Amino acid sequence: MCQLLGMNCNTPTDILFSFEGFHRRGGLTDQHADGFGIAFFEGVGCRLFLDDQASAHSPVSDLIRRYPIKSKNVIAHIRKATQGRVALENTHPFHRELWGRNWIFAHNGNLEHFAPARGQYYRPVGDTDSEAAFCHLLETLRQRFAEPPPLAELTAAVRELAASIRAHGVFNFMLSNGDVLFTHCSTHLHYLVRQAPFSVAHLVDNDVSIDFAEVTTPSDRVAVIATQPLTDNETWTAHPKDTVLVFRDGAPLAG
Amino acid sequence: MCQLLGMNCNTPTDILFSFEGFHRRGGLTDQHADGFGIAFFEGVGCRLFLDDQASAHSPVSDLIRRYPIKSKNVIAHIRKATQGRVALENTHPFHRELWGRNWIFAHNGNLEHFAPARGQYYRPVGDTDSEAAFCHLLETLRQRFAEPPPLAELTAAVRELAASIRAHGVFNFMLSNGDVLFTHCSTHLHYLVRQAPFSVAHLVDNDVSIDFAEVTTPSDRVAVIATQPLTDNETWTAHPKDTVLVFRDGAPLAG
Repeated sequence: MCQLLGMNCNTPTDILFSFEGFHRRGGLTDQHADGFGIAFFEGVGCRLFLDDQASAHSPVSDLIRRYPIKSKNVIAHIRKATQGRVALENTHPFHRELWGRNWIFAHNGNLEHFAPARGQYYRPVGDTDSEAAFCHLLETLRQRFAEPPPLAELTAAVRELAASIRAHGVFNFMLSNGDVLFTHCSTHLHYLVRQAPFSVAHLVDNDVSIDFAEVTTPSDRVAVIATQPLTDNETWTAHPKDTVLVFRDGAPLAG
Repeated sequence: MCQLLGMNCNTPTDILFSFEGFHRRGGLTDQHADGFGIAFFEGVGCRLFLDDQASAHSPVSDLIRRYPIKSKNVIAHIRKATQGRVALENTHPFHRELWGRNWIFAHNGNLEHFAPARGQYYRPVGDTDSEAAFCHLLETLRQRFAEPPPLAELTAAVRELAASIRAHGVFNFMLSNGDVLFTHCSTHLHYLVRQAPFSVAHLVDNDVSIDFAEVTTPSDRVAVIATQPLTDNETWTAHPKDTVLVFRDGAPLAG
């Protein structure tokens, strides 16, 4: 299996602290050594850094650890290959454009007997179940909505698609268009919301602490979502199973 | 205007030497300081590094200068903004998927009164003439060919599209699907083919030389294409104007 990390904020924020712990799971504190990737939305722009090396040892990962890119939506993934060989085209997150916006997707799990019909708008480049699921998701959204629908309709469609795809196996995923971050949990996903009053957080994977009170303003709000909790002195909430959450402005929306 | 750099090879090759000179034009030896980007095809996989900082000073550029990614097709671009503000979504190269393959595009020039109809398959995310041209190109190819056509047909379609778009202004571009590299020249583009017997090359923008005989095998062949020649002791060929060349396996195809 793989590990997922997501961040959704109400103001552009860097992910250096969370990534410091997370990247060690790619070959150091855990065995997800078959590549890694991280995508940052900056306004409507998006950049995606990929490497087929383990995140604990990758030069690209070194860059990410040093370069404080400020973003309101981030998705990162470290891979332990289940389907698809270790290759760049099979490295998450995946990227496509829909309705003139960037969309990013990463998946943890394994889908069996999942063979959607060839899409009109989107086709996988690699041979993972994950990219096939992403293309099927966007294909269905695009077929159903020629223009971007209101968020409630979009969310309902994502929920319906998640339910149909998870019938094929474990389907923990993160999906973002730079505005909201959709998360779906089949097995393991945890999240927390950091907001004032901020305090000190300490990583699980490395003896590193940060006092968020020193680096935030009182109105900041940041949600961090990860396969397993990244800190050992904060309260992480288990993501409800078989459920899609929608994070916007640093917190899950009600409903 | 901007500057373009492309590389097309018969065996995966790193671009460290050419990029060492090229990146200095982004803010040091020239004034193209509004962002830069570079895309590497690795098999059918593709990764795209972008920064809205000047390439001469960007942390992403520092990574590229140190990390010898081996690729058969590379497209790089340093930007001096003409249309579209300085922002990530306006930073070249641009990426889309077509027919289950990655496609990469970068443009040097300025198109006026270019407003193609909204596409069914591809829409720009940013507001540059360049991304609009790329989307129009792929949209037309996708409308015309539901499946990838033979190279001769594909090339004829790219030539026809280039001719129609260049009526709007300066349209130097590079386009690749990881198999071939299409180049089109309106004003300035130069190329050379390096092959055995290899010799020493010396950069224009920096006092750096390399003896390619020491780092190649006799069967290697590499084409380098750039807005202006990158070396001062090799013979660069001026790219014929209003013409599309197709580079494959390190050399332009005949015809």
